Amino acid sequence: MTSSEVRPGEHMAAEIAEQPDVLAGLVERRPGIAEVADVIAERKPRFALLAARGSSDHAALYAKYLIEVLLGLPAGLVSPSTVTLYGARPDLRDVLLVSVSQSGGSPDLLEVTQAAREQGALTVAASNTPSSPLHSAAELAVDIGAGTEHAVAATKTYSATLLALYLLIDAVRGGKGEDAREIGELARQTLHGAQDGVQRAVDRYRFVDRVITAGRGYSYATALEAALKLAETSYLAARAYSGADLLHGPVAAIDQETAVLAVTGAGRGGAAMHEVLAAVAERGADVLAVGSSAQDVPAALRIPVPQVAEELAPVLEVLPVQRVALGLALARGGDPDRPRGLNKVTKTR
Amino acid sequence: MTSSEVRPGEHMAAEIAEQPDVLAGLVERRPGIAEVADVIAERKPRFALLAARGSSDHAALYAKYLIEVLLGLPAGLVSPSTVTLYGARPDLRDVLLVSVSQSGGSPDLLEVTQAAREQGALTVAASNTPSSPLHSAAELAVDIGAGTEHAVAATKTYSATLLALYLLIDAVRGGKGEDAREIGELARQTLHGAQDGVQRAVDRYRFVDRVITAGRGYSYATALEAALKLAETSYLAARAYSGADLLHGPVAAIDQETAVLAVTGAGRGGAAMHEVLAAVAERGADVLAVGSSAQDVPAALRIPVPQVAEELAPVLEVLPVQRVALGLALARGGDPDRPRGLNKVTKTR
Repeated sequence: MTSSEVRPGEHMAAEIAEQPDVLAGLVERRPGIAEVADVIAERKPRFALLAARGSSDHAALYAKYLIEVLLGLPAGLVSPSTVTLYGARPDLRDVLLVSVSQSGGSPDLLEVTQAAREQGALTVAASNTPSSPLHSAAELAVDIGAGTEHAVAATKTYSATLLALYLLIDAVRGGKGEDAREIGELARQTLHGAQDGVQRAVDRYRFVDRVITAGRGYSYATALEAALKLAETSYLAARAYSGADLLHGPVAAIDQETAVLAVTGAGRGGAAMHEVLAAVAERGADVLAVGSSAQDVPAALRIPVPQVAEELAPVLEVLPVQRVALGLALARGGDPDRPRGLNKVTKTR
Repeated sequence: MTSSEVRPGEHMAAEIAEQPDVLAGLVERRPGIAEVADVIAERKPRFALLAARGSSDHAALYAKYLIEVLLGLPAGLVSPSTVTLYGARPDLRDVLLVSVSQSGGSPDLLEVTQAAREQGALTVAASNTPSSPLHSAAELAVDIGAGTEHAVAATKTYSATLLALYLLIDAVRGGKGEDAREIGELARQTLHGAQDGVQRAVDRYRFVDRVITAGRGYSYATALEAALKLAETSYLAARAYSGADLLHGPVAAIDQETAVLAVTGAGRGGAAMHEVLAAVAERGADVLAVGSSAQDVPAALRIPVPQVAEELAPVLEVLPVQRVALGLALARGGDPDRPRGLNKVTKTR
């Protein structure tokens, strides 16, 4: 079958549906990830850096929270341009650098990883392409193992990257991935249980122009990924905010014409969203709540997600969001598998 | 005079105009900042963390680049919620924590600073309010010295914070602030030279709906601040991207209806914007170029800025952007001094 015979969004739809199996398979491969974790634990890094672009950058932010909270290590996201444009060569002894890239093919991440290794960092690549230059450049590597991704918009590689990073970091602290054991089955329940809510969201937001997404804590990553998915598939100028930053100014831009996709889980991040939702409601925004406590907040529409340990909630929350992005793109006459102006691997420096 | 007699935007306009004097005054007070820098240099931190919210977060990102490039230290931005929501208490020995806040009154920054000091970090507060709890909580403090800010939208405190952080970091490496010596006069020239371009931008974008801002390197901070100013004063759903991230997906959302405010300076960050501008032009976007090389890029409108060392360009670039935000807010019938739903100090946790 040639690519012209593929229906619009077919790749994206198929890859969204694969996620329960991909996630369950990754849990099976946890022992291999734990071997990488053992080396990290042995080297006792004192500081962590994460390098990524695009969707992977949201997975990196998620990992930053995990590293700070679960490992008690200060962590930061790399700004690749300090290395690639300005030639910075910081002293990276005692630093763990995790480079996250589904393709493993971004020249800037490769340069950052090579430079970090030369500067003394323990380098770990997390990618979906074990044959990539990034995997070879890093001292250690984690294979996301999501299988080939044909859609331009990352879906299964995103959720699999989140889970792989969770399993890695959990193992560094000596964990056995207990909380993730049922994640494949929970993902299946999430996709199944969200069908009605997704369809209603696609209907309701068919003509939306202004979209803001918001989340706090671990789920801030979900808000960022939601905004990117909507931008790249439906061409919406969606903007993500941490719930806290939203109250520092941008809330002024929210009005009755604004749809707010709020990620509201049962944990502390979700609880901290309540004041954000109150401020947003006061301004008349139309709220789509997604998460395990979506039922408990004021919203125009709610998409519930099964409850899981808060650290793992982002793996599930993103699933219905991907379906909303896919559905909106199709409803608006687009083809999310061929967004205008995008290639699978973006070669920025 | 009661507040009801103040004309719309009067505070914001006055504070924008004060900046040349504020910046020149800060250069005069460099020796005091250098004393703080000497203590930092003596303690030889190995990692840096920056904590901030809102506009100050953009100044913190600017400082992160300076620390990585000029000091060769790995650096990261703190996600306050890891401390305030999840109770993370990372080991911060050998870590420099810089907390940036114009008011010094954010409870979350205070908590992050106190926790960091307890965990062994060398803590430095940079704020415009020496009497604030943040100044007392940190071991060292830099007074931005911009004078009382009455407008809700930060203008003079933003540019002064950038300069104060530059002077601090430059002094840590033994610099004497040479490149900043004329910054007050250059700011005056910037505001004067931009008048025509600002007015044309206000006219052209009176009815704009979709705005994207973009910059690379040090000037990514300018793009972020531009988007925030437009959001909080003109209620535009403006979205900032690093030039590199824009090419990783969001470029698909750009079309003929999109205005792109591109920060294009004469340095390496500006040079790296050329491929971004080519991609944006291909999509038919309407480009407003701001910066010292604005004349050299394809754009519908250009606002030139005098050239200065690339590290200092963000201090100047933001000035005409503030005037565009003010002018657009007024042209749209708003009062940027009283944005709906905003207070001067936002008390998030």
